[in-house]
Amino acid sequence: MCGIFGYLNYLTPRTRQFILESLIKGLQRLEYRGYDSAGVAFDTDDQDGQGLAKIRLVKTKGKVCVLNESIFSAEDLNLDSEMATHVGIAHTRWATHGVPNFVNSHPQRSDLDNGFLVVHNGIITNYKDIKQFLEERGFSFESDTDTEVIPKLMKYFYDSQCADDGDKPTLRELLEQVVQQLEGAFALVCKSAFFPGEIAAARRGSPLLIGIKSDNGPADNIDVLYTSPFRSPQADPFDVLEDYSAGLSVPEEPSPPKITRPDMIRTNSITIINPDSCNKDIRAEYFFASDASAIIEHTNRVVYLEDEDVAAVSSDGVLTIHRLKRGGAMQRKVHTLKMKLQEIMKGSYKYFMQKEIFEQPESVVNTMRGRVLYDQHKVVLGGLNSHISVIRRCRRLIFIACGTSYHSALATRQLVEELTELPVMVELSSDFMDRTTPIFRDDVTFFISQSGETADTLNAMRYCKSKGALVVGITNTVGSTISRETHCGIHVNAGPEIGVASTKAYTSQFIALVMFALVMSEDRVSMQPRRRQIMDCLKIIPDLIRETLSLDSKISDLAKQLYEQKSLIVMGRGYNYATCLEGALKIKELTYMHSEGILSGELKHGPLAMIDKHMPCIMVITKDNTYKKCLNALQQVSARSGQPIIICTKSDSDLTGKGSITMEVPQVVDCLQGVLTVIPLQLLSYHIATLKGFDVDCPRHLAKSVTVE
Amino acid sequence: MCGIFGYLNYLTPRTRQFILESLIKGLQRLEYRGYDSAGVAFDTDDQDGQGLAKIRLVKTKGKVCVLNESIFSAEDLNLDSEMATHVGIAHTRWATHGVPNFVNSHPQRSDLDNGFLVVHNGIITNYKDIKQFLEERGFSFESDTDTEVIPKLMKYFYDSQCADDGDKPTLRELLEQVVQQLEGAFALVCKSAFFPGEIAAARRGSPLLIGIKSDNGPADNIDVLYTSPFRSPQADPFDVLEDYSAGLSVPEEPSPPKITRPDMIRTNSITIINPDSCNKDIRAEYFFASDASAIIEHTNRVVYLEDEDVAAVSSDGVLTIHRLKRGGAMQRKVHTLKMKLQEIMKGSYKYFMQKEIFEQPESVVNTMRGRVLYDQHKVVLGGLNSHISVIRRCRRLIFIACGTSYHSALATRQLVEELTELPVMVELSSDFMDRTTPIFRDDVTFFISQSGETADTLNAMRYCKSKGALVVGITNTVGSTISRETHCGIHVNAGPEIGVASTKAYTSQFIALVMFALVMSEDRVSMQPRRRQIMDCLKIIPDLIRETLSLDSKISDLAKQLYEQKSLIVMGRGYNYATCLEGALKIKELTYMHSEGILSGELKHGPLAMIDKHMPCIMVITKDNTYKKCLNALQQVSARSGQPIIICTKSDSDLTGKGSITMEVPQVVDCLQGVLTVIPLQLLSYHIATLKGFDVDCPRHLAKSVTVE
Repeated sequence: MCGIFGYLNYLTPRTRQFILESLIKGLQRLEYRGYDSAGVAFDTDDQDGQGLAKIRLVKTKGKVCVLNESIFSAEDLNLDSEMATHVGIAHTRWATHGVPNFVNSHPQRSDLDNGFLVVHNGIITNYKDIKQFLEERGFSFESDTDTEVIPKLMKYFYDSQCADDGDKPTLRELLEQVVQQLEGAFALVCKSAFFPGEIAAARRGSPLLIGIKSDNGPADNIDVLYTSPFRSPQADPFDVLEDYSAGLSVPEEPSPPKITRPDMIRTNSITIINPDSCNKDIRAEYFFASDASAIIEHTNRVVYLEDEDVAAVSSDGVLTIHRLKRGGAMQRKVHTLKMKLQEIMKGSYKYFMQKEIFEQPESVVNTMRGRVLYDQHKVVLGGLNSHISVIRRCRRLIFIACGTSYHSALATRQLVEELTELPVMVELSSDFMDRTTPIFRDDVTFFISQSGETADTLNAMRYCKSKGALVVGITNTVGSTISRETHCGIHVNAGPEIGVASTKAYTSQFIALVMFALVMSEDRVSMQPRRRQIMDCLKIIPDLIRETLSLDSKISDLAKQLYEQKSLIVMGRGYNYATCLEGALKIKELTYMHSEGILSGELKHGPLAMIDKHMPCIMVITKDNTYKKCLNALQQVSARSGQPIIICTKSDSDLTGKGSITMEVPQVVDCLQGVLTVIPLQLLSYHIATLKGFDVDCPRHLAKSVTVE
Repeated sequence: MCGIFGYLNYLTPRTRQFILESLIKGLQRLEYRGYDSAGVAFDTDDQDGQGLAKIRLVKTKGKVCVLNESIFSAEDLNLDSEMATHVGIAHTRWATHGVPNFVNSHPQRSDLDNGFLVVHNGIITNYKDIKQFLEERGFSFESDTDTEVIPKLMKYFYDSQCADDGDKPTLRELLEQVVQQLEGAFALVCKSAFFPGEIAAARRGSPLLIGIKSDNGPADNIDVLYTSPFRSPQADPFDVLEDYSAGLSVPEEPSPPKITRPDMIRTNSITIINPDSCNKDIRAEYFFASDASAIIEHTNRVVYLEDEDVAAVSSDGVLTIHRLKRGGAMQRKVHTLKMKLQEIMKGSYKYFMQKEIFEQPESVVNTMRGRVLYDQHKVVLGGLNSHISVIRRCRRLIFIACGTSYHSALATRQLVEELTELPVMVELSSDFMDRTTPIFRDDVTFFISQSGETADTLNAMRYCKSKGALVVGITNTVGSTISRETHCGIHVNAGPEIGVASTKAYTSQFIALVMFALVMSEDRVSMQPRRRQIMDCLKIIPDLIRETLSLDSKISDLAKQLYEQKSLIVMGRGYNYATCLEGALKIKELTYMHSEGILSGELKHGPLAMIDKHMPCIMVITKDNTYKKCLNALQQVSARSGQPIIICTKSDSDLTGKGSITMEVPQVVDCLQGVLTVIPLQLLSYHIATLKGFDVDCPRHLAKSVTVE
């Protein structure tokens, strides 16, 4: 969950100032992915013995602004120096191995001379073995990171092959060789002092995309080239690597051979951007990034890398994409992004999250736009059209997700059960995989993820696909891995969500699942009144959300009463159980208070013991089929001197005006009530966090998109 | 969740001292069901104008020992006075309506002269309507309880019918009339100044049983008599009651008419105990109680009442059981209990819970006794024999339970999935009912409850039965409602569990579900090695539990470090996820600390934000398929300065001796590891609670068996 950014200007003269500012700005757009330390690598005007530019590495602990200060306060940098061709790489980190500090920040380097430099997102699971191998060969490591093995292994391969009589390997070839040795998930970008003006990148499991800006007008597609490894017939064993290979886990597939004598690897590659433009006149800028938000202000033309792709721009300024294994699409499409930059800017709000909470009246409209035909009382989900009849005949529906997305599935489970009359299971992705849950060909599985890149959910999706189940994606990110690899799906169209704590994506996922239930039941006569009722409420829900948001100042006052508490319990049941879990998660994430969502039906089985007049609690009580039971729970809590804050529907005379603090939301059909009841809790978590002085958009330790297991 | 105790001696002279001591002792045995206030009602030597003994009511806030002191410190009681026939009723309360205090304690009374007195367990949901009805007719209420409407409604009916010219109604008839007006769940026992020496009792939804001690040797069965309500042909509408009825919710079934003119109700009843003994020579003592633990020291002959039964002992000393609606068994069997009294005594332990934790090496043996044939590598579950082939052919398995029982289902879900290759759903009973989850004829549903009386689980069981699913019970209580109403089941045989926080029942439920998985897979060749491995481990698990219990003193020291904390997080995944939830629940229940079990796979989706050096946390990391991922989670927590206490397996060199506090349990096959890892958490919760000076057996606000929704 780190942010990677690389910038290459080829025959496009740029000052050092411009380059560094571009790198910093790129990182700032990615900061929501991680922000405990940051670093950049770029060329200086100094040269080494062979006339190659020396690379400078600047790394700092903390957010990107600290890095920015550190760079521009350096006195020995000539910021006006102009470079025709230059590669800079940058990184904003979220620690997985080793605490956030200087040595553990990226870029990681091969040696003190910065021969090879790598920025990496993901986890290398076999790094200990590689580290041992390299240490035995004289490399000494400076950091606790898994990443550091990558530049060092590149250096090792480079040195071995230069010592051989064969041709010097290219940067891409070196990266290909290294990637074959890595286990785990990664996206990485590298730069080398030995290959000035060149860049290479690879992905397996973590997102990476390349923005292209060129006057020569890139083609719509980029061909994928296959590296054909072969062994020279007379080749004797490549001692060192064989030895190395023995120290690693046994490769599962014997062919193609994992270790190939590098000097035997040759490809017929050349290419691309535009075959016609393969000449000295090419001028281009390339942007390598973890996601499009860092790129969009430079260009809207992007290529998404697939797993096992190795991309490189060589000294001729040409972007190539290589793969070792055949299979899959023969081309990578150059997409034109329609995302607007202002969509990812804060506007008049103090924080992205605040903006996203207040955007919900619009974002749910976008989710429903063109899909809910209110007048005809019909719902159309284009993305499911060709599969809906298969889904209707399935044995069961399984919703699989993590965190907030999991709560959206819980929130709508009851309605989906009611309208489909199918068994519905809701699973946490990680637990689902831990259990290797039995999956059958007649199961329909849903994968819900805002980013579409959540590693656990992705794994579960691939597992279910391999078992022959139909896999359906529900994501907020066009072009994400989940949206590409599922059989069909629903884009929730909530717009970019920058705040780490998910808000508008939750309500949009909620609405998307409600729409799914409506589509499933469109042929059922007995369900028409219920469906009409729900669709009529969908029509007015944007207004009701707006009305609910007017609680903001009342909640801001309430936050003042609560923000010094250590604990907070949120209780409810039925349709509102998910609201409680989601509300408690928001409070955990943003305020670092220990908050917990509790099913009020379970109160008497243990949690009631915690209740006394000191324990702050919130109860969600709305007029649905559990109303009486919720009142019972309220009486039990009150009988133990608990003083709950109550979220209820407007003018509920049993609850309002009885001395308790209430937050009244408009009433709506039971199955949509959760869209409204969650909003006071979103606002409450926001206000408590700001009172505590925490950064709402970047809660400590958390990152927006969890792309490692 | 209150405890009811009634004692009637018929023609068996007893001193008042003896009677009061018996009532107090009965309550003390039931104290685990509730203990926030208590009360008794008994006859005094004073008489009213009609020569009827005046009844005294003694009630106190707090535990039964406070009541005991209050009774025996009264100076005006003649304790030596001997009574040939006498009825005393007593109650220990767990508040549902109204705070624990004098007026809200039971027995509740009809008027200041104690005309009718009632002890009640359960909740009357329509009490507000009845209260309003009675208030309009001049009754004034003294308490906040729902119960108070019962004696007052009896008095109202009694007065109306005595004012009529008809025959005076009997106590049983009055109770029958009242019960028809009540909605909700209850068990109740009543005594009246107008019916000296008589007792009447009724149940709907809450357990109630009657112990019989008689020299005349009760028969093995008691016939059920049916009260035939009919309307007199010329009867004009019974104004008052019709009026009353209109204020209530509409009765669902129009016949038999809910309100019958009381003076028209006549029955042909007489009977029982033994038809031959219906004469003046009958001598008997009857014990009415919420469960057998209060009765076992007096007699082992008991009758379990069914829902809608009305039982009464009239002035002839004969016990009758009446019902309004036909259907069901025609007799109630008189059971002979085999439970021994010492089984429910504390022995050398300070608390029952402590005793039950240390009993686990024996209780799991009892669970497996005669069922796991270690030498033949075979498991036999007699209770499932005739249904196992149906279960093997089912569409899916659904485990439904509350609290700790729910955790036992979660803990074994993965193994059941593995060995049955069936979809397994695990549901919280209350949520399952809130959602009216779709259930099909080819589903097999399991209901897990220590007491076999958990109201939510019972409801779910009846719902699934009505949908045609096979219902299977897993309980620790022979003769409980779940064990009687399910198609088949497994008794976990853990022995009586008195401590409110469940410990040995959990491990026995766990083992019972493992045995079920083994039975399901006995015909699968490919699974034999796995089955053998599990059975070999089952054989040694008592010894491994014993070894784990030796951590006691180390954990006692650890508790000293933790007991002043406000929060505690318990993290783990895979087989140990349930351990974390169960451990956190124990800590919640006993120590009133806010503890929460968190799936460590979800850490990065929010909870990680709470982690810093101040947040106490425990991580469960054992050598199973999630081991590497758990180490990853540990690194993430450590990188945020978290200092987790680790529960791991013995001599795990990656974890022990690295500076963290570890609690090392013996290693066993992955799917049984949870039986061992939960024990340190049971002990920890016990020690923290004793350090905080809390009553471990009776945590505040909680009761052993949750027999209301």
